[in-house]
Amino acid sequence: MIDTVTVIGSGRVGSAVNARLRERGVAVSSDAGDLTLLCVPDGAIASVARSIPRGPWVAHVSGATPLAALDPHARRFSVHPLQTFTLTRGPEQLDGAWAAVTAEAGEAHSIATWLAETLGLIPFDLADDARTLYHAGAVFASNYVVTLQRAATLLFEAAGAPPRALEPLMLGTIENGFELTGPISRGDWATVGAHRTEIRDRVPELDHLYETLAGATVALAT
Amino acid sequence: MIDTVTVIGSGRVGSAVNARLRERGVAVSSDAGDLTLLCVPDGAIASVARSIPRGPWVAHVSGATPLAALDPHARRFSVHPLQTFTLTRGPEQLDGAWAAVTAEAGEAHSIATWLAETLGLIPFDLADDARTLYHAGAVFASNYVVTLQRAATLLFEAAGAPPRALEPLMLGTIENGFELTGPISRGDWATVGAHRTEIRDRVPELDHLYETLAGATVALAT
Repeated sequence: MIDTVTVIGSGRVGSAVNARLRERGVAVSSDAGDLTLLCVPDGAIASVARSIPRGPWVAHVSGATPLAALDPHARRFSVHPLQTFTLTRGPEQLDGAWAAVTAEAGEAHSIATWLAETLGLIPFDLADDARTLYHAGAVFASNYVVTLQRAATLLFEAAGAPPRALEPLMLGTIENGFELTGPISRGDWATVGAHRTEIRDRVPELDHLYETLAGATVALAT
Repeated sequence: MIDTVTVIGSGRVGSAVNARLRERGVAVSSDAGDLTLLCVPDGAIASVARSIPRGPWVAHVSGATPLAALDPHARRFSVHPLQTFTLTRGPEQLDGAWAAVTAEAGEAHSIATWLAETLGLIPFDLADDARTLYHAGAVFASNYVVTLQRAATLLFEAAGAPPRALEPLMLGTIENGFELTGPISRGDWATVGAHRTEIRDRVPELDHLYETLAGATVALAT
């Protein structure tokens, strides 16, 4: 149904998508494809979409942007790869990740699903009006994981411990199915209190973050 | 130097340690080893240590507990495997993890290093008085990762997206070296504001956590 794809944008996502389509034998053309895939910054999607002649399919790969940004195109959908990308790696970054598919009609859904699977992604349906909550969830699971690593690194540096030792711990937490261990799971408030005293004394900029996360852990994870 | 180890405690850590020692051909005896390894809850370390006849080496595997909890023993040290453990898996959980070694004298340091390496851990030195900061760092990198996953799961459930799609995203964030992507990295405050509006409306119990983490991300990761 789609023979030729035009990928617009060569940033983190566009580069991986372009390389993966070629790997899978899909013709990638610089213009006039059966599908134009907008891999441009969220804020540029609407203006780029308006500049494209109507006719072929048009899609975007943004998590946060509604389909209306693709106006005036009616043959449209979005496929959001639920992954974080770096330019220093290739299309293998797509492997095993999931993809949120948003489509208004049956044919659009079929093409979106084909695209997700061709990219090596596992598709799931996402309602257009659920995007913001979904995207906020992705921020917790990616951007805020970075924030935790930076906070832990500050504490390890203050303790004279090597920050690279944190990585197997973070991976182990995921591999073990996010089972809560540690002082909060044991109700060991003496240890939690000792952490806060020491943080206030040595790395005070982390006190509010530690306290907020401790409260959220009690509320969400115990 | 150590022929026989007595492991006290068969919880998450004790079970993995016991199995790994046997795997590596170390004799594990129910008593009278050259080294008694306390794999008991933090709060029980001091009383169990006092109950052990002086003479052989005594060590604990706690991250938060100072060496003084091993009083009156002088031949003592601690090796804390920097990992989260579950009873549903075996000694392979130790592979690739690091271990904080705390020892007051040269011989203790040698034996602690031998123990860490025999367990399959990568040892690093940790000062006894730096434990609390170190342990707080581990809480950020493990327990609070669980909290983020629970928060993201609530948002995905509210959005009708599958929570298991979060796992490859979290792993990708670690594999890509904790590079910050997403709206905060782009200074896209409109998207951040939209997240907060929707969270307040639909999952208000996460508003304070989202806001605190957003502020910490700006301070620590941009």
